[in-house]
Amino acid sequence: MEKAEHLLSNLYFEDIDYAHIDHHRAIRKGFPEVIFGQGKTSMQIIGIMETMMTRDNIILATRVDKDKAVKIQKKIKNIEYDEEARLIQLKQKEPEITGNGEILVISAGTSDIPVAKEALLTAKAMGNKTKSIYDVGVAGIHRLFAHKDIIEAASVIIAVAGMEGALPSVIAGMVKAPVLAVPTSIGYGTSFNGLTALFGMLNSCSSNISVVNIDNGFGAGYMASAINHT
Amino acid sequence: MEKAEHLLSNLYFEDIDYAHIDHHRAIRKGFPEVIFGQGKTSMQIIGIMETMMTRDNIILATRVDKDKAVKIQKKIKNIEYDEEARLIQLKQKEPEITGNGEILVISAGTSDIPVAKEALLTAKAMGNKTKSIYDVGVAGIHRLFAHKDIIEAASVIIAVAGMEGALPSVIAGMVKAPVLAVPTSIGYGTSFNGLTALFGMLNSCSSNISVVNIDNGFGAGYMASAINHT
Amino acid sequence: MEKAEHLLSNLYFEDIDYAHIDHHRAIRKGFPEVIFGQGKTSMQIIGIMETMMTRDNIILATRVDKDKAVKIQKKIKNIEYDEEARLIQLKQKEPEITGNGEILVISAGTSDIPVAKEALLTAKAMGNKTKSIYDVGVAGIHRLFAHKDIIEAASVIIAVAGMEGALPSVIAGMVKAPVLAVPTSIGYGTSFNGLTALFGMLNSCSSNISVVNIDNGFGAGYMASAINHT
Amino acid sequence: MEKAEHLLSNLYFEDIDYAHIDHHRAIRKGFPEVIFGQGKTSMQIIGIMETMMTRDNIILATRVDKDKAVKIQKKIKNIEYDEEARLIQLKQKEPEITGNGEILVISAGTSDIPVAKEALLTAKAMGNKTKSIYDVGVAGIHRLFAHKDIIEAASVIIAVAGMEGALPSVIAGMVKAPVLAVPTSIGYGTSFNGLTALFGMLNSCSSNISVVNIDNGFGAGYMASAINHT
Amino acid sequence: MEKAEHLLSNLYFEDIDYAHIDHHRAIRKGFPEVIFGQGKTSMQIIGIMETMMTRDNIILATRVDKDKAVKIQKKIKNIEYDEEARLIQLKQKEPEITGNGEILVISAGTSDIPVAKEALLTAKAMGNKTKSIYDVGVAGIHRLFAHKDIIEAASVIIAVAGMEGALPSVIAGMVKAPVLAVPTSIGYGTSFNGLTALFGMLNSCSSNISVVNIDNGFGAGYMASAINHT
Amino acid sequence: MEKAEHLLSNLYFEDIDYAHIDHHRAIRKGFPEVIFGQGKTSMQIIGIMETMMTRDNIILATRVDKDKAVKIQKKIKNIEYDEEARLIQLKQKEPEITGNGEILVISAGTSDIPVAKEALLTAKAMGNKTKSIYDVGVAGIHRLFAHKDIIEAASVIIAVAGMEGALPSVIAGMVKAPVLAVPTSIGYGTSFNGLTALFGMLNSCSSNISVVNIDNGFGAGYMASAINHT
Amino acid sequence: MEKAEHLLSNLYFEDIDYAHIDHHRAIRKGFPEVIFGQGKTSMQIIGIMETMMTRDNIILATRVDKDKAVKIQKKIKNIEYDEEARLIQLKQKEPEITGNGEILVISAGTSDIPVAKEALLTAKAMGNKTKSIYDVGVAGIHRLFAHKDIIEAASVIIAVAGMEGALPSVIAGMVKAPVLAVPTSIGYGTSFNGLTALFGMLNSCSSNISVVNIDNGFGAGYMASAINHT
Amino acid sequence: MEKAEHLLSNLYFEDIDYAHIDHHRAIRKGFPEVIFGQGKTSMQIIGIMETMMTRDNIILATRVDKDKAVKIQKKIKNIEYDEEARLIQLKQKEPEITGNGEILVISAGTSDIPVAKEALLTAKAMGNKTKSIYDVGVAGIHRLFAHKDIIEAASVIIAVAGMEGALPSVIAGMVKAPVLAVPTSIGYGTSFNGLTALFGMLNSCSSNISVVNIDNGFGAGYMASAINHT
Repeated sequence: MEKAEHLLSNLYFEDIDYAHIDHHRAIRKGFPEVIFGQGKTSMQIIGIMETMMTRDNIILATRVDKDKAVKIQKKIKNIEYDEEARLIQLKQKEPEITGNGEILVISAGTSDIPVAKEALLTAKAMGNKTKSIYDVGVAGIHRLFAHKDIIEAASVIIAVAGMEGALPSVIAGMVKAPVLAVPTSIGYGTSFNGLTALFGMLNSCSSNISVVNIDNGFGAGYMASAINHT
Repeated sequence: MEKAEHLLSNLYFEDIDYAHIDHHRAIRKGFPEVIFGQGKTSMQIIGIMETMMTRDNIILATRVDKDKAVKIQKKIKNIEYDEEARLIQLKQKEPEITGNGEILVISAGTSDIPVAKEALLTAKAMGNKTKSIYDVGVAGIHRLFAHKDIIEAASVIIAVAGMEGALPSVIAGMVKAPVLAVPTSIGYGTSFNGLTALFGMLNSCSSNISVVNIDNGFGAGYMASAINHT
Repeated sequence: MEKAEHLLSNLYFEDIDYAHIDHHRAIRKGFPEVIFGQGKTSMQIIGIMETMMTRDNIILATRVDKDKAVKIQKKIKNIEYDEEARLIQLKQKEPEITGNGEILVISAGTSDIPVAKEALLTAKAMGNKTKSIYDVGVAGIHRLFAHKDIIEAASVIIAVAGMEGALPSVIAGMVKAPVLAVPTSIGYGTSFNGLTALFGMLNSCSSNISVVNIDNGFGAGYMASAINHT
Repeated sequence: MEKAEHLLSNLYFEDIDYAHIDHHRAIRKGFPEVIFGQGKTSMQIIGIMETMMTRDNIILATRVDKDKAVKIQKKIKNIEYDEEARLIQLKQKEPEITGNGEILVISAGTSDIPVAKEALLTAKAMGNKTKSIYDVGVAGIHRLFAHKDIIEAASVIIAVAGMEGALPSVIAGMVKAPVLAVPTSIGYGTSFNGLTALFGMLNSCSSNISVVNIDNGFGAGYMASAINHT
Repeated sequence: MEKAEHLLSNLYFEDIDYAHIDHHRAIRKGFPEVIFGQGKTSMQIIGIMETMMTRDNIILATRVDKDKAVKIQKKIKNIEYDEEARLIQLKQKEPEITGNGEILVISAGTSDIPVAKEALLTAKAMGNKTKSIYDVGVAGIHRLFAHKDIIEAASVIIAVAGMEGALPSVIAGMVKAPVLAVPTSIGYGTSFNGLTALFGMLNSCSSNISVVNIDNGFGAGYMASAINHT
Repeated sequence: MEKAEHLLSNLYFEDIDYAHIDHHRAIRKGFPEVIFGQGKTSMQIIGIMETMMTRDNIILATRVDKDKAVKIQKKIKNIEYDEEARLIQLKQKEPEITGNGEILVISAGTSDIPVAKEALLTAKAMGNKTKSIYDVGVAGIHRLFAHKDIIEAASVIIAVAGMEGALPSVIAGMVKAPVLAVPTSIGYGTSFNGLTALFGMLNSCSSNISVVNIDNGFGAGYMASAINHT
Repeated sequence: MEKAEHLLSNLYFEDIDYAHIDHHRAIRKGFPEVIFGQGKTSMQIIGIMETMMTRDNIILATRVDKDKAVKIQKKIKNIEYDEEARLIQLKQKEPEITGNGEILVISAGTSDIPVAKEALLTAKAMGNKTKSIYDVGVAGIHRLFAHKDIIEAASVIIAVAGMEGALPSVIAGMVKAPVLAVPTSIGYGTSFNGLTALFGMLNSCSSNISVVNIDNGFGAGYMASAINHT
Repeated sequence: MEKAEHLLSNLYFEDIDYAHIDHHRAIRKGFPEVIFGQGKTSMQIIGIMETMMTRDNIILATRVDKDKAVKIQKKIKNIEYDEEARLIQLKQKEPEITGNGEILVISAGTSDIPVAKEALLTAKAMGNKTKSIYDVGVAGIHRLFAHKDIIEAASVIIAVAGMEGALPSVIAGMVKAPVLAVPTSIGYGTSFNGLTALFGMLNSCSSNISVVNIDNGFGAGYMASAINHT
């Protein structure tokens, strides 16, 4: 068996020295490998994208700052880059809508929008209908309640908040749908770069809620899509 | 409007001095309020259960240790108590299966079983088909792969692990389905009562994953059910 | 000057070996010294109370558990002891109402009541009108809004919450009055014995809010009274 | 009721895409929304200010660094900008004195002055009489006692300190008035950017004291004003 | 040389299986080895004391709780045990006064006395004149100033405080002498078992100050004696 | 291949409901699975031992406290139990010496002996020659140098220390051999249950050193054996 | 003896004012002192290298960033500098292979390569055969299993991973050989600059594993060489 | 008394708006106020120096980086600036030697020298004889022992170390004199900018030791002088 395993698994991925590109992932996971841009050089990102382009319909690279993006755009045609979300997309064709319902992204403050947008664009790229509401934090909670109909209609909700991170709890208390809470690093002092928001969300007294890493808009969008495709 | 709001909301809940029982929750959330047993006296739990019994088909009380459970069982008939999961259930009739697919609970070690069981019983009580696999941690990863078919068939997976908390990452890498990671407080030294497992799970290099609080089997079961009912 | 300072300050307090009792405090601060019971023996508490009784109209001792309280009650007559709040009171006569408005104590959960009660009894003992609302946390936020009139009528609000600690933010967003936030140690896992609630409250996106130490119901009641006497 | 709530709440705020401006706040809270400048672009701040200008008498924007302030001043006339306090003010007319007594701001060190000034200017803008004493930390405590008369005359005291943060405790021990403690991020090593000062203040052995977030001069000024208007 | 080193060092200590008793220490350090009682069985403490008794004039064992002390007293005659300080002393004759000046121990609160006493008894045992003042914390700072003459007369001051730990800073600001700050674990919530006091002391804005571990009265007494013998 | 994998892996382990016993481990790893006793009931430990006894020559169970050990000894014959090390051993026959050199265990203090013994017994059980030196911490460093010959002769050194954890650094500076550092939870205050020792060891300025978890004597013994068998 | 010690030890090292160069280390430890470049000026590094060059066959300087390296290369001929690994090497002649087996370096992600390379180059410089596999993290675990033969053949394995740091656990579960785990600072949010990976590795449920400091590729290579030379 | 206190204390200090200069300090403390340069502008430092120059023989300003120093030197003549120690000195005449013995400063590594020098220059400025030994860390402990005579002759020892911070423990074990331990922020990963060294020093198993804040060379020099003047 070890032999068979060895042979077969060679087909699963391609070794380009600094990376093992996982071609099997689109089959196994329903979506190709996504490139985590942080800590990679623009040359490495280009190399990985060129290897993937031969097989995959859509390529995402996250956490790509503007400098790297400009270098990548010079080498690879037809890239879409969203500077706020720091997200690169390369599509052979637009993704079909395959998700069951609608994914709603809500942010507590204006400063949380970049993370919210990373979630939104990821969910869209993975074949989901999406909608967004921004700047409806708990200090003026009537702003949130004004959107009650949209909130109750969503299949999956992504709630993005920094500082005390109370928004996801309040939303989860209003609906049946699963809520994905995304803490952001917005704040100062004891916000601890998002840790306080994260811990607040993990301690939510609502229960239809789970949490992703700080500023991980991508992960929230990906998980929301997984839920929306069950 | 404030007047209307005031009048209506009085119907939503019942004030029994030490608790505001949220009768509206079964309508709004699809499941009645669940009693968080920790920090409440057995008398308070009994009082809340008796108020709820008049309206709700199923009542859950979590984190009820054996001493309290015995006292509650003396006052209220037909209670089911699972000592390992520390969960009380009171059902007028068995819940119907209303969830779409099957929820699978996997634990890394034998010591993680109590948390896994709390998740399992919660998901069952909320109308879901469930299955479980225990003690398949990453130190002998072939044990996990032996259950590949069951794992790939699940709609939602709850992965429970203490210590380094690596199991959910590996599972999420194998499947398309959403994975709910539950860190447990099993371990010593730098396990920090589950904090290391929690942080490991939040940093998973897989993306179809989100996390609940340490030892929060109940929350994982509840969120899994919310996902399984979308 | 040093001499004068030396002479005068000897009148300010009495040295009973293990304690310097600050007789000047009732004049300087408007209320006699309050005994912090934790870490003191019942004999020490009795000794301090007996020294104070000769001068002060009302004596409070906080964080006195039941065992100590029983011993103290055997030695000193007419003590009132609230077991939940762990508070001892000894009054020559009932305190007059001297505060300007009403102090309202709100708690998020049933388990937060002991801390809420410590705040309430302290504020009462210091000459304030008080009111309380319990178990109106953010997971069913309509329960809170139902009490809108009482909330808007208060001069000072003490908001007590554990877990994610979001309640004070929401309340402070509703009113003009100052809100004192009290984090409690209720919760588990990443609630870190109240630290998460504390940090959440310090990061409130509302601004008419300030915070006291975890489980410090006494401090909240005292500060509320100071505010209500300006 | 849901319908009415929906209609009415639309009047409360204005949605300008990246922000929901809360026009109801001046009525509900006695002061218009204050713009948190950190994490917002100068274009976003300008947009929000322009929307607010049509209705509100005074607009504050906090945590605006010099670069942003210069850009904003080019677009909006008559802005006052305090570089040390990083505060923008736009006033139709000077605020009337509506507060009951005087708010006193005391800082422990020269380096704490920027935070102290943010508190002072906020309190002034909200209609309060104010006074300040700077650089009277506990290492030469006679400097503090020299100002005893001013300190005892204040209605509300804001005490600003970094490093060990001991000043508010000593001040609160001297007076009846409520003391708002503001930790600053001044210090090095185990000052942990103000965390040590914060924790020291939360553990004050004086009781007429409560605390705001690290470097949150604005919050202290706002809360002091709320207290001074009860 | 290695040979010589090997031979000689054998004379320095005695190996009794579970301990290497350092007979050279009285010569090298001016005081015999002190037994750290925590984590040792009473049998081990007895064994070490019996080995030392043949050579050393005075033996100290710290952190010995009452149960162990009773067992040790049954085996070894003439032991003095202070339950509050948890200190065992065995003296062939009373230590001579060899220190230059007087060591003064000051505690902020009644609850800090056990740690203060451990420091006091240690300093006494090592041949120093000592004095103490208890319960003069910063919330009523005139109590401290009343003892100004004694404070200014001391050679070395040990200042013991829990909670916010501000006392040593204030004292060090008053004198030329070196101040040893001892944080205690007295407090709750964000006192973090003495960590807040420790960090406050390390950040003192006075400079003739240094710090020992939390509750380390013994270390403070020992260091004070070392200073008093220079 | 997936089929083959599935079939084969069933042979690797045995599923006894609450545990998957990994029979393949003795082949793959050179030593059978070791039972982690903490968090398991005595019945579960007995069940696992009985399943293993049919195949494995030696069974270890770690972190078994006395109560559980007594219950297990009643059910399973010929168990050796070391109470200090909390270790159960069940051997069909004594292990042969298969390791290349000698493993030396050194502890800094008397209180570190239980962890040191767990390491020693584990290394012995895995077929290694072992030796130990106890109570040679850095406060009297000549005690350590007296054992220089033994230290330089060892193949692998396990250095066990609590408090400041400096011993492994000093030892590693003396020899060529690999040093495994084991922090213990001995200490108080800022020892943080071994965290300070752990971090000190990770920051060693010597380089032939690596670290295991706090109090993990078993892991150190196991890793030392792995090194001694290369 | 003290005299002899004094005389002899003067031969052991050379004092060049800002450094004591330890010439005895090559004899005592089998490899000359390695220069820790961080926090040293290029002039200091040059000075130390020039002093060492007269005696030692190979000189390593770690954590030397590009700017410093360029300055050093201008002064000292024949330096090899690896920018990714930030490592300077100066060799009189190529090191002989003296280690017993092969050291294998495995990294979880592309971004972990700099740390992996520092380990690899260090091990090579110390006379070991080495091999490497990069980018085989647990999210696509079949990539790892494809290299099973190489992994099982290694004498010592260095496993480098950031984020959740799960790779070393999985590898250690597959082999008998000792595994050195190296956490890297790759990640964001709750990766805490490698702390989460570090703690995960310390809590590994595999036992033939030990850990070095975050990003300490050098230490891992050095320790692996020490193991490979036993 | 309050009046007298008020009058007199005005003589103690001078209020120059942003600073209260404490002229009484030279009398009370034996040394004039020292300017903490961090967080002050060069204009503020100049202002304070000019006010002090009229009265004080020696002025020190710490933590002054090069840019500020250059600006200050343009305004005030005869300043001595040490860039490594970041220390400004302004002397009317050289300080007399008034301390009893000699203060010895020892550093563990080359990178710790800036902190060591700040201590040395402070002690010198305060009238003490001083000596220094650099780069004698515990990884080659014979380098330390070679200086045994100098070490044993010192009245007070300042031991400076980063990383694991073990040096002060070893030194304190060798001598009777008081040892002041100074942790530095040198290191990476789990050195936590000096926190690990600090905690290690606080947990020293030697007892003639106390600790100052991380990188606080100034404080160590000041405290050493206070000790040396008893």
